[in-house]
Amino acid sequence: MSLPVAKDPMARRRSSATSTCSSSSYTDTSSDDEGVSPREKVQKSSKGFTDFCVKNIGQASFGRREIEIAEQEMPGIIALRKRAEADKPLERAKIVGCTHINAQTAVLIETLVALGASVRWAPCNIYSTQNEVAAALAEVGIPVFAWKGETEDDFWWCIDRCVQADGWQPNMILDDGGDATHLMLKKYPATFNLIKGIVEESVTGVHRLYQLAKAGKLSVPAMNVNDSVTKTKFDNLYSCRESILDALKRSTDVMFGGKQALVCGYGEVGKGCCSALKGMGSVVYVTEIDPICALQACMDGFRVVKMNEVIRNVDILVTATGNKNVVTREHMDKLKNGCIVCNMGHSNTEIDVQSLRSPELNWEKVRSQVDHVIWPDGKRIVLLAEGRLVNLSCSSIPSFVVSITAATQALALIELFNASPGRYKSDVYLLPKKMDEYVASLHLPTFDAHLTELTDEQAKYMGLNKAGPFKPNYYRY
Amino acid sequence: MSLPVAKDPMARRRSSATSTCSSSSYTDTSSDDEGVSPREKVQKSSKGFTDFCVKNIGQASFGRREIEIAEQEMPGIIALRKRAEADKPLERAKIVGCTHINAQTAVLIETLVALGASVRWAPCNIYSTQNEVAAALAEVGIPVFAWKGETEDDFWWCIDRCVQADGWQPNMILDDGGDATHLMLKKYPATFNLIKGIVEESVTGVHRLYQLAKAGKLSVPAMNVNDSVTKTKFDNLYSCRESILDALKRSTDVMFGGKQALVCGYGEVGKGCCSALKGMGSVVYVTEIDPICALQACMDGFRVVKMNEVIRNVDILVTATGNKNVVTREHMDKLKNGCIVCNMGHSNTEIDVQSLRSPELNWEKVRSQVDHVIWPDGKRIVLLAEGRLVNLSCSSIPSFVVSITAATQALALIELFNASPGRYKSDVYLLPKKMDEYVASLHLPTFDAHLTELTDEQAKYMGLNKAGPFKPNYYRY
Amino acid sequence: MSLPVAKDPMARRRSSATSTCSSSSYTDTSSDDEGVSPREKVQKSSKGFTDFCVKNIGQASFGRREIEIAEQEMPGIIALRKRAEADKPLERAKIVGCTHINAQTAVLIETLVALGASVRWAPCNIYSTQNEVAAALAEVGIPVFAWKGETEDDFWWCIDRCVQADGWQPNMILDDGGDATHLMLKKYPATFNLIKGIVEESVTGVHRLYQLAKAGKLSVPAMNVNDSVTKTKFDNLYSCRESILDALKRSTDVMFGGKQALVCGYGEVGKGCCSALKGMGSVVYVTEIDPICALQACMDGFRVVKMNEVIRNVDILVTATGNKNVVTREHMDKLKNGCIVCNMGHSNTEIDVQSLRSPELNWEKVRSQVDHVIWPDGKRIVLLAEGRLVNLSCSSIPSFVVSITAATQALALIELFNASPGRYKSDVYLLPKKMDEYVASLHLPTFDAHLTELTDEQAKYMGLNKAGPFKPNYYRY
Amino acid sequence: MSLPVAKDPMARRRSSATSTCSSSSYTDTSSDDEGVSPREKVQKSSKGFTDFCVKNIGQASFGRREIEIAEQEMPGIIALRKRAEADKPLERAKIVGCTHINAQTAVLIETLVALGASVRWAPCNIYSTQNEVAAALAEVGIPVFAWKGETEDDFWWCIDRCVQADGWQPNMILDDGGDATHLMLKKYPATFNLIKGIVEESVTGVHRLYQLAKAGKLSVPAMNVNDSVTKTKFDNLYSCRESILDALKRSTDVMFGGKQALVCGYGEVGKGCCSALKGMGSVVYVTEIDPICALQACMDGFRVVKMNEVIRNVDILVTATGNKNVVTREHMDKLKNGCIVCNMGHSNTEIDVQSLRSPELNWEKVRSQVDHVIWPDGKRIVLLAEGRLVNLSCSSIPSFVVSITAATQALALIELFNASPGRYKSDVYLLPKKMDEYVASLHLPTFDAHLTELTDEQAKYMGLNKAGPFKPNYYRY
Repeated sequence: MSLPVAKDPMARRRSSATSTCSSSSYTDTSSDDEGVSPREKVQKSSKGFTDFCVKNIGQASFGRREIEIAEQEMPGIIALRKRAEADKPLERAKIVGCTHINAQTAVLIETLVALGASVRWAPCNIYSTQNEVAAALAEVGIPVFAWKGETEDDFWWCIDRCVQADGWQPNMILDDGGDATHLMLKKYPATFNLIKGIVEESVTGVHRLYQLAKAGKLSVPAMNVNDSVTKTKFDNLYSCRESILDALKRSTDVMFGGKQALVCGYGEVGKGCCSALKGMGSVVYVTEIDPICALQACMDGFRVVKMNEVIRNVDILVTATGNKNVVTREHMDKLKNGCIVCNMGHSNTEIDVQSLRSPELNWEKVRSQVDHVIWPDGKRIVLLAEGRLVNLSCSSIPSFVVSITAATQALALIELFNASPGRYKSDVYLLPKKMDEYVASLHLPTFDAHLTELTDEQAKYMGLNKAGPFKPNYYRY
Repeated sequence: MSLPVAKDPMARRRSSATSTCSSSSYTDTSSDDEGVSPREKVQKSSKGFTDFCVKNIGQASFGRREIEIAEQEMPGIIALRKRAEADKPLERAKIVGCTHINAQTAVLIETLVALGASVRWAPCNIYSTQNEVAAALAEVGIPVFAWKGETEDDFWWCIDRCVQADGWQPNMILDDGGDATHLMLKKYPATFNLIKGIVEESVTGVHRLYQLAKAGKLSVPAMNVNDSVTKTKFDNLYSCRESILDALKRSTDVMFGGKQALVCGYGEVGKGCCSALKGMGSVVYVTEIDPICALQACMDGFRVVKMNEVIRNVDILVTATGNKNVVTREHMDKLKNGCIVCNMGHSNTEIDVQSLRSPELNWEKVRSQVDHVIWPDGKRIVLLAEGRLVNLSCSSIPSFVVSITAATQALALIELFNASPGRYKSDVYLLPKKMDEYVASLHLPTFDAHLTELTDEQAKYMGLNKAGPFKPNYYRY
Repeated sequence: MSLPVAKDPMARRRSSATSTCSSSSYTDTSSDDEGVSPREKVQKSSKGFTDFCVKNIGQASFGRREIEIAEQEMPGIIALRKRAEADKPLERAKIVGCTHINAQTAVLIETLVALGASVRWAPCNIYSTQNEVAAALAEVGIPVFAWKGETEDDFWWCIDRCVQADGWQPNMILDDGGDATHLMLKKYPATFNLIKGIVEESVTGVHRLYQLAKAGKLSVPAMNVNDSVTKTKFDNLYSCRESILDALKRSTDVMFGGKQALVCGYGEVGKGCCSALKGMGSVVYVTEIDPICALQACMDGFRVVKMNEVIRNVDILVTATGNKNVVTREHMDKLKNGCIVCNMGHSNTEIDVQSLRSPELNWEKVRSQVDHVIWPDGKRIVLLAEGRLVNLSCSSIPSFVVSITAATQALALIELFNASPGRYKSDVYLLPKKMDEYVASLHLPTFDAHLTELTDEQAKYMGLNKAGPFKPNYYRY
Repeated sequence: MSLPVAKDPMARRRSSATSTCSSSSYTDTSSDDEGVSPREKVQKSSKGFTDFCVKNIGQASFGRREIEIAEQEMPGIIALRKRAEADKPLERAKIVGCTHINAQTAVLIETLVALGASVRWAPCNIYSTQNEVAAALAEVGIPVFAWKGETEDDFWWCIDRCVQADGWQPNMILDDGGDATHLMLKKYPATFNLIKGIVEESVTGVHRLYQLAKAGKLSVPAMNVNDSVTKTKFDNLYSCRESILDALKRSTDVMFGGKQALVCGYGEVGKGCCSALKGMGSVVYVTEIDPICALQACMDGFRVVKMNEVIRNVDILVTATGNKNVVTREHMDKLKNGCIVCNMGHSNTEIDVQSLRSPELNWEKVRSQVDHVIWPDGKRIVLLAEGRLVNLSCSSIPSFVVSITAATQALALIELFNASPGRYKSDVYLLPKKMDEYVASLHLPTFDAHLTELTDEQAKYMGLNKAGPFKPNYYRY
């Protein structure tokens, strides 16, 4: 489904304010320095570096281990680092970064540095920073301004510290949500106009860039990496195929075999959810608005129904539409006792959770991210993550998936930074297909996969360059 | 894979000259009227109609039964017939048709007539006509000029009879391979310029249209229905998922369980083949040139290898690349005894069959469409359909798949015929996405599938029209 | 399901009187010698051998090719032949054989000869003999008495010629249906009592042996090979997984994707059918009487329903119960237009076909093995093989499956023939598990599968002999 | 695989001493009463009941909620409770229970009470007691003697308190591991001889019962519920199909797609693991010692290899053999960097973990239940649960699976308690098949599954009773 856009730029940051129910998160549980803000503390790395602001520089070694573990599952970005390290294709690039800060993005950040870039980094979300990772980055001399639990004011202060600094004239932006772009455009328009390019990853940020371009306010080239084929398939189909099982199991220990599940939406996310649940022996129904996707669901062996045909029978209800109020109070009134309800699709809009916050219903928190909502007759539904994205809240995202996104981001930065003048106008571009193919090729060794090469004769017959691109732009994969 | 184009317009007609090994074809085995050409015979229907030329009008009732059976499995085109019959959207359309003539296309032809069109019809292939179906069409008064086993001269004569006739001024072309377009453009340019639109289904024909357009020689609008999403997915992914098993089983009775299979190419066709073989318990390997498709193969659970890594071990070798000489003599020298080799991809180029026609190898025809090629040491490989498309030669194509194509063709004709002046220029167009969605919706009742409708609020939130289209043009499905 | 037993010994022979719709059967279509019975003809092989009776010895070379093709797909029995040829473990065995006579059983027969046995062979079914194969056996000097289309009198004459011959004192019986055993017991009791052992393959024959044993009339040991684990799984689960698709596709060209199918019975046959149909994208429902099998169906992702819950909606109805009148006229009255009805289970009892032979319904034969039964309102159901076993009638049985049965039969003969006196009493035995394991091991090289061997330490820890058997008798696999 | 037996009765208790990495366990983290043993504390429920010994009676309400949640997923045992509550089939039964004590077994215990039994309960493992659940049982007046972290001495004391009590003459034993049986037989032989029956669930306990019977020391009837078909399939195939994914994901966040996995052993557990991993897009290899299971693996689409053929390439290595030292140090020396190694099979013997505790290898604990073992060259393998059962240590067991086991145990108690004198001798019995079928039927409503009933005519034709049993004892399912 084409995902819609949150109107409020802060919504994205708040909506993914998730204390995950994953067992694998390394949360720091240290006593809290008595609530002193990091901004008020004097901070210094073991080597005397001070141009950063994190929660606790002392956690650097824990963070370093996390980064090293992530590197193991991020073969593509590491391969890119090795291949391009000698060339230093980002030499003289000065990048303002604004993304989540965790072990996986740290691998990207350190790759950019290895490729020659100078960077300054802030978080794109007030809750998602892994403090020990931020510490590890600071410890090796990377200017990072980030901690978990920032205030709104802290948030903008951190970005500001990345844009403005002594002797620092940024020329690239790597953004995830558009906030660094927004701040620079509003507050430092002169600096903004000297930027060589913006790389934006998120649905929200890309939407804002297209709006800026349409309004004639985008004065620099931007690359939309959100819609690259490799990133899209992995973020949606393949990643969700795994995370739907993980999220449901970790939070509820439900047995999938024989259960009846309803998946709303048969886009890439829905396809991944359906495939996984069917593989585990669930009976899966689909709702769709688009007849083409509906026909695909049929051919893949799923009954396409209207919600009310099966709503009384299902054990698991998953939304994956990108739309709002797909599951209404009226639907939930009909659910049977014990039904699990969760959102895999978009933001927190798909399930009308608000309708459940009414006096006649009791909420009982049974675990982190798991609420029982109890009807007057005793019926309970099991609501996960209060209707927010359950794959973000209750499962982990494989580093391999992040590696693909990170490699795409790095390549987009290289492309924009090194493009000959005039190659890119002040507009929003998709990554050239050849680079999509290159990202994919970086990840094949993980699977010990071996590509076949075209012979000269075959390339000629097909009208292709032996090095690609191998498909027309409209190819659907 | 993007399929390349046969250079010689006759190649297509000859290459699919297939006497199928399907048990379900109703071939007429009657004694041959002593070889008299249909063109030399006086022909008359039971109602005195004479404007046609078929093999034997006496077979009409057999053909009618075939058409009725096909109608059962072609719900979409029949639904279209019913919905549009009152409107007669093709009233005054005069269509020159040039396609395969069989029970399934007969359903399309009779639908066009039911929608108000006048038609004259010729075959696009000298071997593929089902004589009894042609007879059935003639019997109900449709001018059809077609028999199985035409000569090259007959072939052009038949098309000519559809273009030129007393009191007949065609204004639409429905083409499959571009021959009717070609003839009219060359021989009757004045008539051609009065055409309102061309609908072309084949890779070859579409390629020629794009060339004409590029060369400035296309003076009328044309619709490329070959690349419609619904048609593409069904012709490739879903249809091949079924026909690979059917073709192999009917021709060789091979047991799939435990067999090692190598599928060359992981485009839509390859994806369908791999999914089916895996589902039946085969161990499947994939070769690919495109890293994105290769990565998909990995994620779908297939080892991506170079041919030589597994060539000595496989029991089944399937090509699905659209390329040439994918399987060479050198490869086949390494195959083990009993390996089955077949082509699901394109034309007859993928397997270098020519290299097997050499003195040291013996050929032994063991069944229709099945040859054993025997090496001096006694090793045999089982070659299907002499390297031509095995799904055309050794399996049937489900009427349901043809229904989707037929509905797409009919809608394209309606669109072009009824478009307001200036809506389409003299260029090649893709079918509007909304019509793709309509074709899909026509086929949902077959599966008792029920679409969900957007609420006003949801449509607004998504920025969509409630009636579609539901996806941007670049959506990949 | 435990299969019941046909009461009439001839029932089995007649019920499988199938002219298959398989494209791969090599039926002789030669003109019929003007109807002269083979029994009245003088017959002689090219080497002057005359102790046989077949349709046409001149077809021997065609039959030989068929046998050679079968050998390619029967690796286990060929491996057994090679391993045991030097030992001649059947030296001095004189075997009366009574089985189907086709390319696959010919491989068994010639294997027994290669292992040292003398044999005389008759068919167990009056229709199933492949004449050219019988000719090929006779040509190499094997006394075979068999042709397609025998009369009842011919049938018993052929068996008699195998039991009684100059200088021939049989000491083993290989039976399929119990007729050779029956004839010898009734007509030649003295000869019967000298038999060292009987090997019986069929449900019917095994049932009769147990009855004889129970009644104290079985004076020799017998081996029930019908219930060997390897044979059972391959004859049912794995073979039916492939043949359900093949039988439906060859006879109806139905597209499986999205179709709703109801499978009655979730025993091994039903499990195979459900798995295959689900794999091809059908939506599958199951009916069951046994709660354990029903629970398995649930866990495997199938809805378990009563027939009437879905009877109006299904496109395909398959019986696999071993029971009678599972599909009644009342059910069929509710089926929707175009529904395909077939029997994969047992004999011809599962569908009440008799109820369809009533005046208000029209039957229309549309293809070999395919009838349309037409209701007064025009509704048609598509009945396959007139309710007889569709996998026998409309698909082939993979030689690989037959190889497993044949190897099991040969090993049972070797075991009984070589057993030390007193090892087997006059009773019915199952093949020792170790021999089941040996049969399996003979078939592993086909898949290039490599067994792991227990270390001494591991064998001791498990309390197992390193050579097997590896499982207790009650193990379920 | 037939699982071997731990020789030391304590081994089982210790080997599953697992602090799980599951996010869903409710461990009590309350401060520890300063280490005072529960045996030394005065304990009293809110209603003044004192005949119990738990950690902290104050946690009863937490435990009650846990029990209520478990009841939701244990429909079979609850259904049994409801159906039999009026009959009180266990009235006058006095049961000594010795099992794990957690929310799920609490549902069983309370069911036995609801059916009329008096019970006294002790744990079968010194670590596995959920303290809050034990408190909840005590709170409602059930004499329970159990806490987490018992000493060896505590362990036997608890059992003793269940056997010996004022006015208590036990007449049934429900055992899991054989310890209650062992203690009673050794210490209270007179009491033991008055027992009406023993129900034993574990491999170990069953083995000991067979040994007692063989040695003539078993003076009462015993029921082996471990080998009931329903229990076996669910404990192994279906449960492991889910837990392999859960255990790997929770502990390592590994992405399954495209990963190469080696599963050692293709018994029920191995089948479940292979099916799940294949379903998620892994490439799965199998090792086997048994040719029948190996052939099944082939037919199911897995390559059967010797360990050394793939050991250098795999990303995941899972043991499921029931054997010892299946993975040796030599194997692990060859594994590639990052390979995950875990045991799904049996005890802690399958992986030779001892061989990894050597000076040249470094161990690094990265998470609970996850160790990196580091070779001198930097290679790491990821060892889960130190080679103990990873499904017990790192995933949850679905309550539904436990419900099946619990229902089987309850029915076995009812059967033995109510059997007419002489029905059961002093021997070990399997549960009658009809009761297996009854257990299955109790669980069908969960899936809204509807059984079909035989007609009289059909039952007669099949020779079956309409109420079952429906299969012969040797049926394999």
